Amino acid sequence: MDQEEDRNAVYREALQLHEQYHGKLEIRSKVPLETRRDLSRAYTPGVAEVCRAIQKDRNLAYRYTLKRNSVAIVTDGSAVLGLGNIGGYAAIPVMEGKAILFKKFAGIDAFPICFEDAHADFPDQVRNIAPVFGGINLEDIAAPRCFEIEEALQDIGIPVMHDDQHGTAITVLAALLNACRATKKQFEDLHIVVCGAGAAGYAITRLLRCIGYNPDVCQSVRDIVVCDTQGIIHRARKGLYSNKYKFILADETNRAGRSGTLSDAMEGADVFIGVSGPGVLTEEMVRRMNDQPIIFAMANPVPEIMPDAARRAGAALVGTGRSDYPNQINNALAFPGVFRGALDAFAARINDEMKVAAAHALANYIPHPTREHILPTILDREVTRAIAIAVKKAAIESGCSRDL
Amino acid sequence: MDQEEDRNAVYREALQLHEQYHGKLEIRSKVPLETRRDLSRAYTPGVAEVCRAIQKDRNLAYRYTLKRNSVAIVTDGSAVLGLGNIGGYAAIPVMEGKAILFKKFAGIDAFPICFEDAHADFPDQVRNIAPVFGGINLEDIAAPRCFEIEEALQDIGIPVMHDDQHGTAITVLAALLNACRATKKQFEDLHIVVCGAGAAGYAITRLLRCIGYNPDVCQSVRDIVVCDTQGIIHRARKGLYSNKYKFILADETNRAGRSGTLSDAMEGADVFIGVSGPGVLTEEMVRRMNDQPIIFAMANPVPEIMPDAARRAGAALVGTGRSDYPNQINNALAFPGVFRGALDAFAARINDEMKVAAAHALANYIPHPTREHILPTILDREVTRAIAIAVKKAAIESGCSRDL
Repeated sequence: MDQEEDRNAVYREALQLHEQYHGKLEIRSKVPLETRRDLSRAYTPGVAEVCRAIQKDRNLAYRYTLKRNSVAIVTDGSAVLGLGNIGGYAAIPVMEGKAILFKKFAGIDAFPICFEDAHADFPDQVRNIAPVFGGINLEDIAAPRCFEIEEALQDIGIPVMHDDQHGTAITVLAALLNACRATKKQFEDLHIVVCGAGAAGYAITRLLRCIGYNPDVCQSVRDIVVCDTQGIIHRARKGLYSNKYKFILADETNRAGRSGTLSDAMEGADVFIGVSGPGVLTEEMVRRMNDQPIIFAMANPVPEIMPDAARRAGAALVGTGRSDYPNQINNALAFPGVFRGALDAFAARINDEMKVAAAHALANYIPHPTREHILPTILDREVTRAIAIAVKKAAIESGCSRDL
Repeated sequence: MDQEEDRNAVYREALQLHEQYHGKLEIRSKVPLETRRDLSRAYTPGVAEVCRAIQKDRNLAYRYTLKRNSVAIVTDGSAVLGLGNIGGYAAIPVMEGKAILFKKFAGIDAFPICFEDAHADFPDQVRNIAPVFGGINLEDIAAPRCFEIEEALQDIGIPVMHDDQHGTAITVLAALLNACRATKKQFEDLHIVVCGAGAAGYAITRLLRCIGYNPDVCQSVRDIVVCDTQGIIHRARKGLYSNKYKFILADETNRAGRSGTLSDAMEGADVFIGVSGPGVLTEEMVRRMNDQPIIFAMANPVPEIMPDAARRAGAALVGTGRSDYPNQINNALAFPGVFRGALDAFAARINDEMKVAAAHALANYIPHPTREHILPTILDREVTRAIAIAVKKAAIESGCSRDL
């Protein structure tokens, strides 16, 4: 069966599965409900006493309610998978799928919240539904609005993370740490090109600059150059000031002050990190890179360059977003453990220290990385545990945990 | 053990239960998630095909997602149980309890949504989270705001019902139908006093006037007089125009144009329906009623009059909200079946025909009502099925169902 046939088979099976089960998640009671006494404990009149306790001390919601273990997966459907702005309704299957991954990999009770009106005040609406949730996973929201929304929600007292940004960034950072080990490159010597300045590209770039938070392990990379559809982002580029986030990228990257196209950026680069579109990286561009380059071509389903072509042009190690090639770089490796650790720490937010700790835990999960094996499979549930422990520890050490 | 001791024991056990389980509901996957192929069907890449289908036809969300079977239980915590305005956090245990009742009695996947900010635009926020839900159960919202909110949400394309109003009204109507059978009274001859003009009192009064929708069974009652804390509601009463809903009550009830106190209202009444406060009905008032009166004293936990006192004063039949006396009148008898039927019919709303049908189904569930037994126990799951079938049928016959 060739790849297209297989893809079509998966599509058919997915429709069948969704029709058979009418969705993928269900709500279950954890408590007995068989007798009148059961009802009087779980509902009226007994529940009134629990309400009164929480009314006196709001933090008791963590002790007595689902808040301790619940995450809202919130989207407006403005940037779903590779499908674009398909809206809140069409986004439901993705959010529901993510909810069951949360349960499967992290034991977290996650529920999808799909906003119908993308023009409504997104942060205010999230803030208003926050009481029952212990965390908020923002999902599939278009850039640059996703940055503003996430920023606006950092003070609401529970962890809020846009997974398309940080889940991806954590996984890429882990992959890069292990790619260095597998290819015997020094992380701090790397010259990196990030292709794509949307949600993922922005967060990857910023997290790569944060790596110094754990100085025992490694230092920041030498330089990062970020490209978008107009080429290299640099301070003198026209129109930059209209997008605050591209201005931040220009300010924080490209120390050498390069300008030009992606092809120009690739000159002498050690690493290509693609979160852009299909086929934008040519073999010729790979040949302009330093010896034994690392290529992460994560556009989905068609990568920036196919692994065979990248290797033909000299790549030492190739990763993609796909499960049918070695080195799948998938944010599903990171988000369950990050939220598990944050919830376990009663963290008020997910800070950079926690993200870096997650990346190191994910990288260290593979004791001897090779060029064909830098990350675990997403089906390995132990990964979540390792990341959760590291994230909780980082939350405590960075003063972000709470004693509730 | 006396009643207060028992109440305190229930409170202690409720706190223990909630602490032991950390809340009462959990999310579970309904689909297999063991292999890579499972993931590719339930999540990426297969889920993209499901998204595309829903993007083309929004109604396919009912086929492919949790929407087919999901209800949001939405509150701002402004009128919780007998606790008053305790806010969104302290309301969580009640909403979570209701969610597990939905699952237990109706197989519905219900999730609590507790708004933190009671001043936000409640209808807009509900409308905005509606995509993943097949229905909205409004809960514990103070009057008269609850009326405005429910009205504003009747056009959103899914059933929206404020249970404190209509769940209570349906159960009271069923109880009254069977109380008439048990006491050999004619429904259409009844002179009824409703004490309490909040959410429940308003809805009970309006549903009693709707009973004519099923003319085969019975006609409207002869007269209803509604009392609030200021006494009888009548058209000439001062200040009435400041509350639209009390004005509607004045306009639709009290044909004889009575005025005065609750005691004046009770003169010659056949039925007392109390949804007010403890002890407001005296034995002396009961003695002013017609022969063999029916008393529903539903204030909780302390009724308007204790059953023993009511019977001493001549009551033929007494119902309360409590499980420790005969004839418990509890809205948990109604809401699971009403939503089950509405979801099964893909109803766009819950109309009066469906509510009346639910009341008749609930009443008819007891083939031979007696003065000590007018309603089934809330632990009887078959009640839900009987109500759901009737509600679905009424939805179809009243043109409120959809073919999705």
